[in-house]
Parts: sequence; structure tokens; C-alpha cells
Amino acid sequence: MILLLKKETTLTEREHLISRLEFMGFKAIPYNKKEQLAVAIVNGIDEKTKTELFHLLPSVEKVIRLNQHLKLASRDVKEKSTVIKVKDVEIGGDDLIIIAGPCAVESKESIFEIAEAVASAGASVLRGGAFKPRTSPYDFQGLGEKGLKYLAEAAKKYGLLTISEVMSAEQIGIASDYVDILQIGARNMQNFSLLKAVGKTDKPVMLKRGFSSTYKDFLMAAEYILSEGNPNVILCERGIRTFENYTRNTLDIAAVPVLKQLSHLPVIVDPSHGTGIRYLVAPMAMASVAAGADGLMIEVHTSPDKALSDAKQTIDIEMFESMVKSAYSIKKLIKR
Amino acid sequence: MILLLKKETTLTEREHLISRLEFMGFKAIPYNKKEQLAVAIVNGIDEKTKTELFHLLPSVEKVIRLNQHLKLASRDVKEKSTVIKVKDVEIGGDDLIIIAGPCAVESKESIFEIAEAVASAGASVLRGGAFKPRTSPYDFQGLGEKGLKYLAEAAKKYGLLTISEVMSAEQIGIASDYVDILQIGARNMQNFSLLKAVGKTDKPVMLKRGFSSTYKDFLMAAEYILSEGNPNVILCERGIRTFENYTRNTLDIAAVPVLKQLSHLPVIVDPSHGTGIRYLVAPMAMASVAAGADGLMIEVHTSPDKALSDAKQTIDIEMFESMVKSAYSIKKLIKR
Amino acid sequence: MILLLKKETTLTEREHLISRLEFMGFKAIPYNKKEQLAVAIVNGIDEKTKTELFHLLPSVEKVIRLNQHLKLASRDVKEKSTVIKVKDVEIGGDDLIIIAGPCAVESKESIFEIAEAVASAGASVLRGGAFKPRTSPYDFQGLGEKGLKYLAEAAKKYGLLTISEVMSAEQIGIASDYVDILQIGARNMQNFSLLKAVGKTDKPVMLKRGFSSTYKDFLMAAEYILSEGNPNVILCERGIRTFENYTRNTLDIAAVPVLKQLSHLPVIVDPSHGTGIRYLVAPMAMASVAAGADGLMIEVHTSPDKALSDAKQTIDIEMFESMVKSAYSIKKLIKR
Amino acid sequence: MILLLKKETTLTEREHLISRLEFMGFKAIPYNKKEQLAVAIVNGIDEKTKTELFHLLPSVEKVIRLNQHLKLASRDVKEKSTVIKVKDVEIGGDDLIIIAGPCAVESKESIFEIAEAVASAGASVLRGGAFKPRTSPYDFQGLGEKGLKYLAEAAKKYGLLTISEVMSAEQIGIASDYVDILQIGARNMQNFSLLKAVGKTDKPVMLKRGFSSTYKDFLMAAEYILSEGNPNVILCERGIRTFENYTRNTLDIAAVPVLKQLSHLPVIVDPSHGTGIRYLVAPMAMASVAAGADGLMIEVHTSPDKALSDAKQTIDIEMFESMVKSAYSIKKLIKR
Repeated sequence: MILLLKKETTLTEREHLISRLEFMGFKAIPYNKKEQLAVAIVNGIDEKTKTELFHLLPSVEKVIRLNQHLKLASRDVKEKSTVIKVKDVEIGGDDLIIIAGPCAVESKESIFEIAEAVASAGASVLRGGAFKPRTSPYDFQGLGEKGLKYLAEAAKKYGLLTISEVMSAEQIGIASDYVDILQIGARNMQNFSLLKAVGKTDKPVMLKRGFSSTYKDFLMAAEYILSEGNPNVILCERGIRTFENYTRNTLDIAAVPVLKQLSHLPVIVDPSHGTGIRYLVAPMAMASVAAGADGLMIEVHTSPDKALSDAKQTIDIEMFESMVKSAYSIKKLIKR
Repeated sequence: MILLLKKETTLTEREHLISRLEFMGFKAIPYNKKEQLAVAIVNGIDEKTKTELFHLLPSVEKVIRLNQHLKLASRDVKEKSTVIKVKDVEIGGDDLIIIAGPCAVESKESIFEIAEAVASAGASVLRGGAFKPRTSPYDFQGLGEKGLKYLAEAAKKYGLLTISEVMSAEQIGIASDYVDILQIGARNMQNFSLLKAVGKTDKPVMLKRGFSSTYKDFLMAAEYILSEGNPNVILCERGIRTFENYTRNTLDIAAVPVLKQLSHLPVIVDPSHGTGIRYLVAPMAMASVAAGADGLMIEVHTSPDKALSDAKQTIDIEMFESMVKSAYSIKKLIKR
Repeated sequence: MILLLKKETTLTEREHLISRLEFMGFKAIPYNKKEQLAVAIVNGIDEKTKTELFHLLPSVEKVIRLNQHLKLASRDVKEKSTVIKVKDVEIGGDDLIIIAGPCAVESKESIFEIAEAVASAGASVLRGGAFKPRTSPYDFQGLGEKGLKYLAEAAKKYGLLTISEVMSAEQIGIASDYVDILQIGARNMQNFSLLKAVGKTDKPVMLKRGFSSTYKDFLMAAEYILSEGNPNVILCERGIRTFENYTRNTLDIAAVPVLKQLSHLPVIVDPSHGTGIRYLVAPMAMASVAAGADGLMIEVHTSPDKALSDAKQTIDIEMFESMVKSAYSIKKLIKR
Repeated sequence: MILLLKKETTLTEREHLISRLEFMGFKAIPYNKKEQLAVAIVNGIDEKTKTELFHLLPSVEKVIRLNQHLKLASRDVKEKSTVIKVKDVEIGGDDLIIIAGPCAVESKESIFEIAEAVASAGASVLRGGAFKPRTSPYDFQGLGEKGLKYLAEAAKKYGLLTISEVMSAEQIGIASDYVDILQIGARNMQNFSLLKAVGKTDKPVMLKRGFSSTYKDFLMAAEYILSEGNPNVILCERGIRTFENYTRNTLDIAAVPVLKQLSHLPVIVDPSHGTGIRYLVAPMAMASVAAGADGLMIEVHTSPDKALSDAKQTIDIEMFESMVKSAYSIKKLIKR
């Protein structure tokens, strides 16, 4: 706990405050935050201690809780935003990053066709599932390694990076041979074994928010990866479950400014899963960029209605091109 | 139910389809939508009939359900967006409408001060509660008619329209003497007696979405007002209740494109209640405009921390000015 | 705030604690709760003060917050459960109260038929809507006063009390001529004008929980009624809105023990609206009684499938009789 | 799709119906369900086909959809309830099954102490986590294999079965050496790799419902296990995430009758995680049994306040004994 003191506070007043805190049973030490006088309480605070009462003490202007669980993901610890450099692409920097591609890699032909189209429209990362988490065991489960191979070849040809989901620790090795960024899906956001496993690799990881995870749960899941030594975590908001079922999920765009306030990690938004409805993808992409997102993840297909999964939320190339153009314009406007 | 037929369909095929439908027990008639051949099923459809099976019939390209409950609010019925003209302000037209002011009218001095500031920053409507719906009976309940009077005087002096909430039918008469737009709060979204009462007035009504109302509930509540003869309803998305409690509510920005798709009515967003946190108001306002909102409703105060209610989500004049500027830029960009 | 002190605490230690609190800026006085030494903090506590830090002080065993908003509904203020006596029926006492009847009064014949059946099965209150809050303005809105009249006549004939919903202040007068208990529906739980109006009557009021109201919101709404001078409020849990849409609502049975812990008011459960599905009514009724509910509110009809509203959740007389029998057995078992 | 025909339907009418269906493009064959005439539609039905329109056809009394995704979990496929026999304990049969123990195995002494107490109070399965899924990577993560060993020894001594959670495929082997039932936690409900892995074992599996999983998601997750050849799946309702945050979760007791209606698998309820609050465990346990649960899973500790995790929701031996007694009485009453 850091107590920032009011501007007019004297050193004597700070000493008085420290003895008062000691008298109350805490261990406190003098501390300065930039040029402001402060006191750090280093002992006697636990999970149950609430910050509010410290505001009652004289001279205290602001109370900053050091979150004992968010040692690495928190912006309190690292004020500067994390920029993740993958080859020549910077995620979390000034540029908007567009990740695009089909829900699942379906065939060599189709992934090459889609890769060419999204690259020319301005995407920098090619997505495509090879191991698919499907609600039903009887649904198409992806092409596996063959799918990853096609993905990597298509991406290479058109100068794109690749991202694909891993569903278990065993898949990490294979996937790492083909992809630049490992994706952890929403259903596995609290699969702690998997989080630890990707935390041990040197691949950037994009972590999708669970269907009903709070911001705190989400950052704590990122912390699992970071705490294993992998600093390159990208957060992805993809909608939460609410009573509204017109849309597949409720895209929580406030997550963007909140996560960027609480953490230094880059934040990407997936309006395809976040809405589940084609006509909502573009407006929600715009909204996400306007709210400060570092990038977008979009399901695109050359023949959306023939897509083997998620057809309803997949947009075609034309919609994608127009969406990318507007998204870049908004990003430019926001940066000013 | 309207069945739009495929382009290549012949008149004979349509006749064949109609007899098939009759054989199945429906009453169907020939119908054209613009230049496309269609069939209208005018009898035999009820709430339980699902549209999907009609897709199995030959020649059918698209099935349009005529919602029997959304006779007036639906865009199926009125394709052109409704533009509500109040004095020289057009709501739902090309321009972004900014409604701004304090949560509650607190004193004559403060409402004049705030009115001057928001007018000069670009707002066109002055908000301020006189009858306040407070969760606790022991909280400040508003100044009543005196508050409305101050609001109207301040608005008049600075060339603004006024909006204020009515909580019961008895307040409509008094409020109508002072305000240009009547507001129905989220807690009263399904207070059907109140909806019918404002539906009988000639004042435009801004209807806020209930905490846990689906889009359908929301439009049906608007239908209550419309069905009494008042065509001037403005919808206002203000956040829904979810498991996430870092924010006061989860602002459902997808509501903007969804409501504008389903209905012809103007849609306004309130990011102040929608987030409950000051630093989120501007980014969520930007996001709302990018998603296509017709306007914004913002809690502004010259001394936000001294506001008698909703202090935490109220922004100051400086933040407001900068937000308005960016919002207008995004609106301009979106319109292109 | 009341600080209960550990058993071994001496009077001197209490004095020491009081001076320490004064030193910290509070106003504290000696206080005893039954035979336990305690300290009451009467000044310096506001909404933001959290109780947790007081646990750090020596001798403190338990910290009791006096809720400044729940002056009348809270069990802190009135330890004994409220028993509401209406004629010879006691609600909130030892007996399980069964409220039963159709969703809406449909005709004289049908309400008499149903009244006879539910009375003979063990119900003590007859329900039946005369003013119906319907999501759509085009749905059946109830018979109005005529419905109330039939309801009262049928109840009288078969020795039942009556309950019916009022949707606006104007309906209270008429309804009071016919019903023993006024019902406030879920959609009007925060219609504060209506709450105040029923608070001014001398009729018991059954308040239904809003679709997305927290326990705190719910009790605060009850406080609105109590604070106008009407002590006879019955709380009714009727399901909340969640992502699960197989059921109409998610019946929150934990509300029963929670509300009875926080408040002294009787708690009734409505498994008909709480599930919306016929086959779930009986098991959820059993569950509610097992969790400690004071009563049940059940939609019953002699021909459920012909009911003009809520047919899907309405049970027939046979199911009702069997349900009532089991419910009484569980209640008896629970009381022991 | 099965169309059950009305009692009075003749064979000629059935033939007429079949030709009509063929005319509409389906492939239909005659079929009998017990003694009732029926028609089975074996081709032309897909995910999008809705059952409702078939009700419009003459003679059709009831339409039964054959869920193509719930081949094994559905009660349509197996009408008789599944009873899982582990040693001499039958889960899903006539007796109420009590699973009890600490959140995590903490030490040899404590697990023996708790095992003795819960066995004597009437439990038949001993729970205790060895691999703990914790939201924060810095929280106690369990004793691992040592914990499992203590658990098995304690259970053996007091004649109990054992259950413990596995968080990854690698842990299955070790866990299987010690436990009788493998538990899949809520966070891993859609960890499909793990579901498949436990599906390949011959150990019974208790699957907990995800925080925001619908009944359909839940049963589909069970289907993943069943489809790998393991028929012994126990479903466990443990609360869902809603806006209400007084409780840790909202225990959805309606899940009990719903799951037992849709599926033949046994259903257990965990009121400890389902509420997160000690005083609510017993009433919600009672409610679950009254709603038809096959068993209860309860966090019990000899010194609840000293438990290393979930202290707030853990009950002591005395509360447990009294709870078990009442639960058995309600079960007996319900069975009649």
C-alpha cells in the first residue's frame, strides 16, 4: 500500500503519520513517488485490508494498493505500454494490427485465396484454426497439423504473420513450428496447465477472455503466463455472456480502456465472436478502435456462407476491405 | 410472413408455391417487394411458427417475418429513419446530438454555469434531473418543479433544448411546461401506465433501456408509446447488468447497430451511466459514435467531485470539450 | 458501526480502544449488546468507510455495520421476524402460505372454478391479475375492475384472501376495494412513485423482485414502502435474468435464506414465473420450502393450456394438489 | 425427427402424411413408439429445421427432435436413469450420496481427522484437492501426489470412496492410482482435450458445470466424455455467474430437474461453491435435495476458519452432521 501525501505535507507531518501507522500495527517506511512525498506500508496489509480507511488519516491524498496478485501484468509495475515485436510487426505500438482469416483452415486452396485477399486489404496476421474447440464432439474438429502447414505456407507467400489456437500442452510443440503467435481460446482461459505451458515458450501468446471472466480473472490468467517467464501476452476481448441472446455474446468494449488502464499489455478485439452476426462486425470493429484497441481479429472468408464453421459471423472480402479502411482512419484520428 | 423469391423464379413457379402453401393450411397471396417476386402469408402464422422451414420450399430466397407486436417501431414498416425535429435541432438526422448537464439540478447558479459551458462546447440539449429515482428513499430526491424552472431558464439563456425525467403520470403536466423532451428512466422502462401516459402527449420522449431488457423488450416498450399516438420516441442505450462489477453497468454498444437495423427510431448512448467511471466516459462515447449512434448523453459538472449524485461518473468541462471535438470528428468520418 | 469486543476484554481495554478511535478521528461511545461489551461509533463513518480495518484493532471480535439506508427493513433493527396477519391468515409465521390462481382473471366462471379447486387443495390466498403488465401493447391487458370483482366474489365464496397487481397509483383505490393484498410486479419494483403510494395505504403489499435487482436493491425498494408508514411488506423472489434461456428466468432460491438473514420481512417464492416451464414448478416449489420460504405463489388453472396468458408455466389442479401436499410435508420437516 | 400421431389416427392417414412430407422434400418412414403410431423423418432435417411447423400437419400430436449432438447423454436415447456403482456405493440410485471434505488436502493429520468426522456423519465419498486451480498463480496450488496419497489413506481407513480434481491429461495417471472418481472443475468444463482424456479411462468422472455454461453446453461437454467410451459421468451443478454478487455464484437449482429431464445421468449439487457463504450451505443443500438431486458435495473442515482455501464457504462438523440428517429426511420424503 502506497499513501501519496498532499502537496503541502511537511517531512515532520510524514514522520507523525508513520508513527501513527506503527501505533496502529503496520510497518511503514518513507517513500517518494516522483517528486511527491509518500509512505509505503510494507507489512500488516493483507487481502482483507481495504484502502478506504487510510483516506481518513491526515495528509493522505491518495491510496495506491499494490496488488499482490498482479505483480507482472499491472501497469502499477510497468508504466510504459508493452509493444510486442514479431518480425517487422509491432503489436501494442502506434499502428492498428489487423488479424484476419477463416475460422478454420479448410483446404490449401481456400487459405491461399483468403491470405492473398486479406494481405492486400491491409491485414498483417493470418488466422485460421487447425485444432478447433467445438461445443459438440460430432462437429468438424479441424485439419490438425496439415491445417497449420497450409496456414504457414499461405502466410509466407503473402508476407503475413500467423496465429492459431492450441488446446493442450501437447499441441504447443507442433504449433510452434508453424505459427508466430499462439492463441489460447476463451474456453481455456483458466486452463492453468495450458497457461503455464505456453508461459514456458518464447512465442507471443494471445489470450482470449473467458465467457464470464471478470477483468481481474482475465489479468490473473495473463499473470499465469507472465509468471512463467513469457513477457509477450496479448489480451483479446471477445464478448461475454449476458441475458441478451439476439447476439451470440455481448461485446464488452469498455474492456479496452479498462484493461489498458490496469495493465501495460496490448488489447485486441474480436467483433466476429463478440457479436456472432455479420452485419455487426464492421460497426463493432469501428467502435473498438475508437475506444483505443491496439488491433482487431476478424473472421473473413472468400465465400462466407460456405465456411465450415461460424458462417453467420464471417464477412466477405469486400466488407473486410471497407472495414479496414475505416478502422485505419479512426485509429489515425484517435492518435492525434 | 413475406417469402422473397429467387431472381429466376417464374410467375408459374410462384403460383405453384402458393397452392403448396394453401395445401399446407396457410392463406397466401402474391406480393411484390420493389421489383422482386414475393408471396405474403396472411393467415395461419402465429407466434409459434418459425420461419426456418419455409426456407425448404422451392424458389424461396429469404423469409421475412412480420412482427405482429412491432407494428410501429419496426423498420419493416417504415424503412426511412425517423428524424425528430425539436425547434431547430434534428435528432436522428445527419448531425450528432449532444445532451449534457448535471445528474440533478442542484441550484440556480450551478445549472447556469454548466449550461453556459456545455453550450459553448457544442451541446444542443441541457439535461438535469428534477425528480430523481434514487435506490434509497433517504437519498437526495431532486428539487422538483423549482429544478425544472432553473433548467428551463438556463437552457433558454444559452440556446439549448431541455430534457428531464418524469417518474409518474402526475409529473408529466408540470414537466411539459418546462422541458422539450420527456425522459423515461431505465427503472420505468416497463412502467406501462407511464409509457401510455407519455404516449398521449405531443412531447418527444427519450426512453432508456431497462437494466436487463432485451432489444425486443426495449422496442416493445417504445411500441407502447407509439401506439398511443406519439411518434417521437428516442431510444437510449445506457448499459445492462452483467457479472462484471468493475464498471457500474456493461455498456452494450452493439445495441446501436442492432436497434437501428430493427427499428427506424433514433438511438442515443449514455456512457456516463453505462460505465459509472469517469475515465471511461470519453472512450465509450467515441466507440458509440463509431458504431453509429445518433447522439450522446453525458453527465457534466463544473465541479464533478461536488456533484450531489453520480459524482464518480461525471466529467468536467475540459474533458467534455475534448470529448465533443473527437466525437464530431468520428461522426464526420463515419458519415462518409 | 458497532464493535463487539472479545469476551475477555476488560473495561479498561475498552476505554483504551475508545481513545484510540477518537485519536483516529471518530466519535465513539461505550455500548453493550446483551451481555457483551461493545463500542458504538456514532460519527465519522460514511458510505465509503469499510468495516474490515476495524478488525485490526485490539479486542475487536466482530464489526457490525449499521446500514444507513436500511433503517426499517433490516433485521439489525428488528430481530424478530415480521408476521403479517390478514384476517385469519398469518404470513411469515409458522405456517406455509399458498397463494394460487390463474395468471389473469378470465371470466366469472373460470375464476370460481379455480377458486373452489385451490381452496380445497389447501391454498389460502387467491391470485388473479386484473391489470396485466404485458410486454406487448397488443396482448390481453386484463379485465380491469370487473376482474377484481369476480376475484373478490370467488374468494369470498371459498374462504380465501385475495391478491392482485396494481400498476399505477390510480389503480390502488379501486384495487383496495376488492383485494386483501396489493401486489407490485417485478417491472415496477423501482417505480418509486408507486412504492410510495402503496406505502401510504394500510393494505399489506407483496413486492416482487425486479428481473435484475440485487438483494440490496430489493430491500431498498421495500424500504420505500416501509418508510411511508406501511409495515406490512412481503418479499417475493420470482427469478432473475441470466444467460440461461432454457428457463424463462433463473429462480434464485438462495434469495430466501439471504433475505431472511438481512431482513425481518416474510419471503414468498414464485416458481411459476421463476422457471416458466410447467414441469419445473413442483420441484422448485419443494426446493423453495426446503430453503425456508414462508410461502409459495403458484399459477394454477383448471385448463392450463387454455389460459389466456402464461399457459406454459401454469399447472393443473391435480399437479397443484400433489405439490401442496409435498410442500406442507417439507415445511413440517424443516420446522423441527 | 419423430412425429407422434394422435390416438385416433388411422394407418391411411399416416400414409397420407408421409406422402405429404415426401412432397415437401423430406424422407419419412412409418415408425411406432411403444403402441403409438408415429413417423420418423430420416432425411432433410438439419440444425436449422425447427420442429414447430410440423405441428401444423394433420394427425401430429407431438414432435420429438432427435438431437444429433446428444447421442449418448440424452434421455431420449436411454430412458432409464444411469446408476453408477463404485465399490458398494450407487450414485444416481435411490440413496442420497454425500461427498464431503476439505477444499484442499492440507496435511495428513487434518485429512484423517476430517475423514473420520464426515464418515461418521454419513458421507460416502471423501473429497480433497491435490491439484488446485487457483485464480492467482501466487496462491496455494495444492500438495500434488502427496495430497492424493493422504486422501486415499484416510478414505481407506474410514471406509470412504475418494474424489479429486485433475487439471490436465498428465495428472490422470497419478490421480487414478489414488482416487475412485475423477473430478473435472468448472474452469475446465470445455477443456476438450482433458474431457477426451478422461473419456478414455475407466474411472467415473464428475463434471462440474462451467461458470456460464448453458444446460446444452454442459450436456455436450458430458457427451465428449461419453463419446470416448466412458459411460460413467456424474453432472455437478455448482452455481453460475450473474449480476448478484452478494453470493459468490447463483446456485441454479432448476438445473437439477432440467438435467434429469434431458439426460439420464446422475446430478449432484455443490452448495459450497454455489453460494460461497457458510450460512447458506445447509438451506441450499436442503433445497437441492428437495428438487431431486442425487447427491451433495460439501466443503467441510474441522476448523473451517483455518482452511487454506475457501474458508468462507466451509462448514464445520456440527453444521455438517445436522445438514446430513435433514437432507436424508427430505430425500426419504421426496422418494415417496
